[in-house]
Amino acid sequence: MGWQRKVLRVNLTDGNVQVEPLNMEWAQQYLGERGLGTKYLYEYMDPTVDALDPANVLIFATGPLTGTMASTSGRYAVITKGALTDAIACSNSGGKFGAELKFAGYDLLILEGRAPEPSYLKIYDDDVEIVSAEPIWGKTVWETEDYLKSHHQDPLMKVASIGVAGENCVRYACVVNDLHRAAGRSGVGAVMGSKNLKAIAVRGTVGVQVDNPKKFMEVVRETHSKLAGSDDVKELASYGTNAMIDMMQEFGGLPTRNFKEVQFEGVDNINPSAMTRVNEHGHKNLLTNKACFGCTIACGRISHIDKEHFTIKNRPEYWHASGGLEYETAFAFGPDCGIDDIDALTFAGFMMNEHGMDPISFGGTLAAAMELYEMGVITDEDTDGVALNFGNPEALTAMAEKTGKFEGFGQILGLGSKRLCEKYGHPELSMTVKGQEFAGYDSRALQGMGLGYATSSRGACHMKHDVFGPDMEDQTGEGKAVPCKKSQDKISIIDSTGLCWFTLGTWGIKDFQAQVDAACEGDWTVERMFETGERIWNLERQFNLAAGLTKADDSLPERLLKEPAKSGTAKGKVNELDRMLPEYYDVRGWDSDGVPTAETLERLGL
Amino acid sequence: MGWQRKVLRVNLTDGNVQVEPLNMEWAQQYLGERGLGTKYLYEYMDPTVDALDPANVLIFATGPLTGTMASTSGRYAVITKGALTDAIACSNSGGKFGAELKFAGYDLLILEGRAPEPSYLKIYDDDVEIVSAEPIWGKTVWETEDYLKSHHQDPLMKVASIGVAGENCVRYACVVNDLHRAAGRSGVGAVMGSKNLKAIAVRGTVGVQVDNPKKFMEVVRETHSKLAGSDDVKELASYGTNAMIDMMQEFGGLPTRNFKEVQFEGVDNINPSAMTRVNEHGHKNLLTNKACFGCTIACGRISHIDKEHFTIKNRPEYWHASGGLEYETAFAFGPDCGIDDIDALTFAGFMMNEHGMDPISFGGTLAAAMELYEMGVITDEDTDGVALNFGNPEALTAMAEKTGKFEGFGQILGLGSKRLCEKYGHPELSMTVKGQEFAGYDSRALQGMGLGYATSSRGACHMKHDVFGPDMEDQTGEGKAVPCKKSQDKISIIDSTGLCWFTLGTWGIKDFQAQVDAACEGDWTVERMFETGERIWNLERQFNLAAGLTKADDSLPERLLKEPAKSGTAKGKVNELDRMLPEYYDVRGWDSDGVPTAETLERLGL
Repeated sequence: MGWQRKVLRVNLTDGNVQVEPLNMEWAQQYLGERGLGTKYLYEYMDPTVDALDPANVLIFATGPLTGTMASTSGRYAVITKGALTDAIACSNSGGKFGAELKFAGYDLLILEGRAPEPSYLKIYDDDVEIVSAEPIWGKTVWETEDYLKSHHQDPLMKVASIGVAGENCVRYACVVNDLHRAAGRSGVGAVMGSKNLKAIAVRGTVGVQVDNPKKFMEVVRETHSKLAGSDDVKELASYGTNAMIDMMQEFGGLPTRNFKEVQFEGVDNINPSAMTRVNEHGHKNLLTNKACFGCTIACGRISHIDKEHFTIKNRPEYWHASGGLEYETAFAFGPDCGIDDIDALTFAGFMMNEHGMDPISFGGTLAAAMELYEMGVITDEDTDGVALNFGNPEALTAMAEKTGKFEGFGQILGLGSKRLCEKYGHPELSMTVKGQEFAGYDSRALQGMGLGYATSSRGACHMKHDVFGPDMEDQTGEGKAVPCKKSQDKISIIDSTGLCWFTLGTWGIKDFQAQVDAACEGDWTVERMFETGERIWNLERQFNLAAGLTKADDSLPERLLKEPAKSGTAKGKVNELDRMLPEYYDVRGWDSDGVPTAETLERLGL
Repeated sequence: MGWQRKVLRVNLTDGNVQVEPLNMEWAQQYLGERGLGTKYLYEYMDPTVDALDPANVLIFATGPLTGTMASTSGRYAVITKGALTDAIACSNSGGKFGAELKFAGYDLLILEGRAPEPSYLKIYDDDVEIVSAEPIWGKTVWETEDYLKSHHQDPLMKVASIGVAGENCVRYACVVNDLHRAAGRSGVGAVMGSKNLKAIAVRGTVGVQVDNPKKFMEVVRETHSKLAGSDDVKELASYGTNAMIDMMQEFGGLPTRNFKEVQFEGVDNINPSAMTRVNEHGHKNLLTNKACFGCTIACGRISHIDKEHFTIKNRPEYWHASGGLEYETAFAFGPDCGIDDIDALTFAGFMMNEHGMDPISFGGTLAAAMELYEMGVITDEDTDGVALNFGNPEALTAMAEKTGKFEGFGQILGLGSKRLCEKYGHPELSMTVKGQEFAGYDSRALQGMGLGYATSSRGACHMKHDVFGPDMEDQTGEGKAVPCKKSQDKISIIDSTGLCWFTLGTWGIKDFQAQVDAACEGDWTVERMFETGERIWNLERQFNLAAGLTKADDSLPERLLKEPAKSGTAKGKVNELDRMLPEYYDVRGWDSDGVPTAETLERLGL
């Protein structure tokens, strides 16, 4: 068990709703969430179709541990072909929506086709309905959630939705659930928009069963207590993910002004101490922390803006869900755009949730546009008169709103940095892999991170591998392939459980394995966990190869390969991808073109 | 400990804010919440002043167990001279506001005077501010909470506020916190309105300490586990308080059509089975249950309206907090007004929360108006054209809205039934004691309940004594004085702990005593608990006597004393108050005029 053993399949084109049994053979091979969603995607769609074509398939997948008593059991993943990347996309999210979908009785929700008119999907256990979204099309994520809860008179309903950005297929539009959690990356919200699907509203009343309840309780008691005693958890709860910003600044791995630099002079104005200190107006940015379903860490931030300092024009009193700076938002709006105004960063972060956009990609795209503006390629005529200089907080908030509402220059920014830089004749300025913008770790300072970025199936991403240790210890490309591959496999399986890998500072793979083994049928050993992770990674690769991607897509922008870091511990260094990549292919059992060999596929049962 | 040892005193007239140490001698004599609030009220105000005069004092009081790990530890009380009753008022409430006030560091909040302009009070720990309420004056409770959270950008803020009814001193206006919990009775919201105080917004970050943590943990583990295994708790969680309606119908103690009858033919349409069954449109009224802070019972209801059946005119999509039928609301809007439309009852219930009014008193007043309407005393001219016949659901919802907005005939209904019936020359039709409307228990069927109603310090009330057992066993007035007195004392002390007495089906006084004793300094024995309860009861009496109330106010309407019950187990019976009251005075150690003797006062240290 762990699984609900049921899949909800909705064809939006003809309105057909079908409940089918979960393919348990696949569940044993791919576990759940990321892995199982990928398997279903791979089996049910042609990888060559355009991401925004109705023939693309959009899957919401829970894991066998989603909605259980395990800590951090609120995760679900959205799997589809990404609108930003034209590669496989798997974006996961927390909050409460995933557990609720599981409680409604489903492991997976598969969305096919395109609704003839704007619609939302209402799921109350077995009662599934496609409803006209006419009253909410054109509304923000926050307005949409308000409307749905009010209209259905159900404050306990959980909602995942898109904003106007998603409706208009902004390439990095995301799916936001519970007002400020998001399946953020690769444009899964644009795919949802292309399907004319505004929202999914769900309420579930079915429990989740585990295979061996007594053992599960024992294991969960132990894993809970590990988290409770962990310094890593204390740090995440106290400082949130933005604790990273000081570390990266010191290390010299904090990409600044579209990766021209690796350290940012304004970091002290936007780091955790800036969030927690009382400023001269008596204002403190951070209110408190907040947890997702079942989570005993609570890394989420609840912040508010200093209105005495920062005036928001033409905005009603309107933040019932605030959110707050997490590291990637702080990096992408801060150093990457050269801005050190904490209120502007915070407000732009709110807008990402309100309008449903990925802050990393928005920030990266704005940073590229800023470089083009300072070069004179983009002018005030393009930008509706807004000065796009690095460091201008007005540019950040004005453009966040324009992009969220799909107005003016926001429509261009909505293309993402790859398409935007190509449009203006400077593709080299797009800091992306497979069209997706980098997270806040410079791969000249962190070599293995660069290898992870280059080889991640969904484009540049810091969440699909974990080589911090080796990267901090050794700043050459040596010996990065093995830990990169191993951590990719490990995270692939963790992403398939329904749990969150922010636990990895405390839990080892054995802790995940013990929870999976107690909850699910089958003998889930550590070895099998790694093998399943490797199977998932290779299946994603197969999808991308079938979609037409090649070795050439496993690359980094020239800036990271040729322009040495200007300061910090990696001063003078570039990324050594050329050295790492062949070794990585080899370790993976892929040929020199990055194609899994027949042996590898057979070994993994692919 | 248990106590925070701090009192926040705010003079609204001159804006003076003062933090003073809690009088620990009084705390040892009156424990907290109801008892301690009463002591402070008694010491700091002249009981003869008009309830709506600035010289009335309004106290928000937490108990020593409020905000602790004890189950149901979310209670706080509002103590003042009641606008409905001109007697002492003590209304308690759950939700999360009370615990938050405690976390801000205060046992008591004392509000004096009248603000020169509409204001709200903002309390962030030691940071206390009186702020202009200009943007929210005239708004509903729900709009007010939305505004405050948005304006201060703090979704975690807890709010207690009044609606337009409270602003205009509707006599039974209440204080609503957390959108649908209320300090409901006796018009404490009208007093708040008379002070020009729209809301109290609070956030606290101070922990609560207990005297003997180890012992407290042990005791709390035991009291939690008792609740977890209790059938009474299961019933409250499953059916809510409305489980009572079937029992009272069967017994013949369900006041119907302004107490003309004691059984209601439409009960099957508004009882828990009606709430939980799926109707012909596929709609189920009850969505789920909901708990207050720290509560492991969760008797609260979350319901929604069948829109296919029940159309709400001119209303936007607007219920982010729904609430749902509890017994007293079901009784007061249902049998007492002869209405069996569950959606009308539910919607009118929402409006009580939205506009901040006590459903018992509103329903009782409407029932009296309906009787006067059917007699021809009130006509369509008075009622803005709405037919006020018993059984008309339109009358219920239209008048709930009018009263909530203080419009038209709603201004007359806002007087309460005593003043309304006097106005129309029929004081005998007001089903009240000390001006406060009865709860849903007919005192011809339940004799001791009648004695409790008559002697309750805050007027007719079912929450200040507990004689169900004796009343169900024996339907004469015999032997009711002792259990009535003893349960009044018991509930007085329970109401002073910070815990909820809906636990009484499972916990005995020893369970409360053990929790208090572990949390607080001093040796809190069962005997001392009863004695403290009795001291509180007598102090309330002293307040009322000083306010000018006499024995004549310990009475019941003639209808209950002279018109026999028409059906049910008490068919032919009237209430035997004349027999019970002298015995009660005697048991209390009061003279024949209901005045505590010098001996009694001395024994209790008064």
